[in-house]
Amino acid sequence: MLVVTEEVCREVVGRDDAFTAVENVFAAMAKGDAYNFPVIREAIGYAEALYGFKSGFDRQGLALGLKSGGYWPGNSDKGLTNHQSTVFLFDPDTGQLRALVGGNYLTAVRTAAASAVSISHLAREDAKVLGMVGAGHQAAFQLRAAAEQRDFEKVVAWNLHPEMLDSLGDVAKDLGLPFDVKEREQLAAEADVIITITSAHEPLLMKQWIKPGTHIACMGTDTIGKQEIDPAVMAAAKVFTDEVAQSVTLGECQHAINEKLILKDDITPIGSVINGSAQGRSSAEDITVFDGTGVGLQDLAVAHVAANLAESLGKAQEISL
Amino acid sequence: MLVVTEEVCREVVGRDDAFTAVENVFAAMAKGDAYNFPVIREAIGYAEALYGFKSGFDRQGLALGLKSGGYWPGNSDKGLTNHQSTVFLFDPDTGQLRALVGGNYLTAVRTAAASAVSISHLAREDAKVLGMVGAGHQAAFQLRAAAEQRDFEKVVAWNLHPEMLDSLGDVAKDLGLPFDVKEREQLAAEADVIITITSAHEPLLMKQWIKPGTHIACMGTDTIGKQEIDPAVMAAAKVFTDEVAQSVTLGECQHAINEKLILKDDITPIGSVINGSAQGRSSAEDITVFDGTGVGLQDLAVAHVAANLAESLGKAQEISL
Repeated sequence: MLVVTEEVCREVVGRDDAFTAVENVFAAMAKGDAYNFPVIREAIGYAEALYGFKSGFDRQGLALGLKSGGYWPGNSDKGLTNHQSTVFLFDPDTGQLRALVGGNYLTAVRTAAASAVSISHLAREDAKVLGMVGAGHQAAFQLRAAAEQRDFEKVVAWNLHPEMLDSLGDVAKDLGLPFDVKEREQLAAEADVIITITSAHEPLLMKQWIKPGTHIACMGTDTIGKQEIDPAVMAAAKVFTDEVAQSVTLGECQHAINEKLILKDDITPIGSVINGSAQGRSSAEDITVFDGTGVGLQDLAVAHVAANLAESLGKAQEISL
Repeated sequence: MLVVTEEVCREVVGRDDAFTAVENVFAAMAKGDAYNFPVIREAIGYAEALYGFKSGFDRQGLALGLKSGGYWPGNSDKGLTNHQSTVFLFDPDTGQLRALVGGNYLTAVRTAAASAVSISHLAREDAKVLGMVGAGHQAAFQLRAAAEQRDFEKVVAWNLHPEMLDSLGDVAKDLGLPFDVKEREQLAAEADVIITITSAHEPLLMKQWIKPGTHIACMGTDTIGKQEIDPAVMAAAKVFTDEVAQSVTLGECQHAINEKLILKDDITPIGSVINGSAQGRSSAEDITVFDGTGVGLQDLAVAHVAANLAESLGKAQEISL
């Protein structure tokens, strides 16, 4: 059995690897070659923790396993990450545990890869301004991955706590991109591509602010009750997602579905666009939305890459069970 | 993080440890201090494998985690166990992975402990003859654990493949107990306590064969469609289980429930008997049945003990993730 630490994951898994792994698994999902098992998510009634598992099997990529973990709000006081994730990969031929992979870095990387895949397939080719709504831990990963998808010339950003924007500005600087803090309405007026990556429970972007041609990747909503954009945007947009079943129940689309502004059949799996079996953007004026709910198969896909790379580079610890 | 191998589990976890752990967690479940999360079980459409997770949290024993694994029918041709299990324990205070524990030996031990707990609390004190229906891998564990619960004087046994009974006979011999192979009707006529531990899909013991005062621990049925005893036994017996929700859906009681021979409320959690909040056997003539469906909390309980003992004895490997 291989042990791949957080540190080794950071060393061996690059943005390109994550992009390819996530793009491939979205495609496999749309073809029915990969599927997610039901999600377990429990408020355990202890330490205010949310705990659970996302799991699945990719028959094409031969990734089988689960990501376990959750949210421990008291961790930051102990110098630990509040979100704790570990990925377990099994050999689909024998059921034996194949690898134990640190999941904290990979979670940020695979989430960033998902929005990057959406930008690659759905944003206008001539997009120049990237808008960032949210400036937490994951926002830096999002910005770096998104910046590689188009010839962006500028980043505009907003965060509920403006003091957190400085570190995101440093990332933009590192990428050689001018960085302007904006109010949300102004951000929407300027941006060609917008990534929302917050823990909001109310709309941060109103429909009337979104200009034609914009691509929005909603990456923050992964729970019933969370919300980042005006549901009216969905009715006006072409809507895509990683997994329709999650999108309508706990993703950003839950609100538009609940308000009957769109139907389930209005949402296209992005894998079908990747496969060429569904159309993505059909005109320069389309507003496109990607509802990135986060599925277990993304975690397995990047952990599979991490395990393979770590093994081939001699960076995985081998232990026997 | 601790790694506790199969070998170390065999070294450190004895039958007494498993009995106490399982008895305590059944009691905690009945008090609402421990609960199982929904079970994931998937036919993955590859290698004819069944794969999934059983998970839960014991707030009293502070065991949090899951057992993953499943059934790979092609493994025996490769010299591997068809059933593959690994237990993952998490620190309930931080969500960090605390231990990785081999689950194959522990699965047999915790299943044997469950029937032993049922015998301890439900069988007649004067039980003399132990009946074993089934002689596979787990039967030896069952026999050893059961033998410690009463002053048994004899073992009677049956198996679909009679040639497998020799090795079970060796276990009885090792325990100093006479061992007779019987037909099922004769076995039921002689036995005071019967353990069924098979993969049968039809009744192996008919109601008219079961004599008053018998205790039956049905340990084989953990899936829809499996069955070991005549459902009419349930209507005539006092029925107990590890978890009522599993008992009525995928345990031995599924058939009596489906045929409306008993109601869900007729089934008592054995934890309530352990706690003293429900009555067990009320007379020497009662037939008692324990429907041992197997819950994730049993796995967590014995793995928790394994991790604690291995750590204190310096037998756990420490790795960092």
